[in-house]
Amino acid sequence: LLHASASPTVGGVLGRTYDNEVCSAARALEVVGERWSLLIARKALFAGATRFGDFRSLGIATNVLAGRLDGFVAAGIMTRRSPAERPEQTEYLLTEQGRELVTVVVALTAWGDRWLAPDGPPVHYTHTGCGGRIAPALVCADCGEVHGADEVRVRPGPGMPAHLAARMPDPGD
Amino acid sequence: LLHASASPTVGGVLGRTYDNEVCSAARALEVVGERWSLLIARKALFAGATRFGDFRSLGIATNVLAGRLDGFVAAGIMTRRSPAERPEQTEYLLTEQGRELVTVVVALTAWGDRWLAPDGPPVHYTHTGCGGRIAPALVCADCGEVHGADEVRVRPGPGMPAHLAARMPDPGD
Repeated sequence: LLHASASPTVGGVLGRTYDNEVCSAARALEVVGERWSLLIARKALFAGATRFGDFRSLGIATNVLAGRLDGFVAAGIMTRRSPAERPEQTEYLLTEQGRELVTVVVALTAWGDRWLAPDGPPVHYTHTGCGGRIAPALVCADCGEVHGADEVRVRPGPGMPAHLAARMPDPGD
Repeated sequence: LLHASASPTVGGVLGRTYDNEVCSAARALEVVGERWSLLIARKALFAGATRFGDFRSLGIATNVLAGRLDGFVAAGIMTRRSPAERPEQTEYLLTEQGRELVTVVVALTAWGDRWLAPDGPPVHYTHTGCGGRIAPALVCADCGEVHGADEVRVRPGPGMPAHLAARMPDPGD
């Protein structure tokens, strides 16, 4: 299904090019690319929300929430189940795919903490056990440290068709 | 202005609660929380896009793109300038705030690479100079390593009003 949602846009009616077609960021945004999706994931990740009513407290409209939860299930981010002891109840549980959104949520929060939190961070993410503060980082597999956007380049990977890779700009180093 | 866009929703007509009000992820999503915003930032970060036409190749509708670029300037993510030698031309340049979205973009791409890229990653992010592969990570200030969402807890920070902090669940650990 993820494929089904990503593929129809390739060469589609909107005239999109490789920039947003053969790009995992674009594909990811097709699944979680609006305001509520990451807030729903965040509430499931950190507030233990599983039931429709748990997510309602985000202030999201009922129809939008239902659509998002259905979409998450279809995309493999959540699974739907009914507890054996309460078969009339529906729970939405993050899958491994959904739980791995934690990196995106923490990175987004850190950016908001830095630029949109004049009173200081509303919440801290802390490490189970040691209680240390958790922050997002970019790590280089070779030398370990990445200090900012200026140090990041983009290169074609195995999933980039050759004719499109040839059109990618070569940023030098 | 960022304040102006974040504050009106507090206790606003939509009945939102602290979940999406006093939360830097929610504030960040108010600025970059739809599909195109991060793709525009990504194109500026990694493809050197500065002019309206550069961003058009994303396949975004003209009116939507104009709105997003104006929004980015209003939010402090980009600045608008005209080159002295070409005063009729407008360039959009990422600010420091905008450039720091790199962590969010790389985290989102990595998630898409893992779950939505059956042919392998379309692109790699590499480190200027050493050429090493760049990956997102979560780092604990105390012990260094964070292995997954299960190890991440949320705690009230200085920007959380006390009466709302008291309502936050204590997830133990």
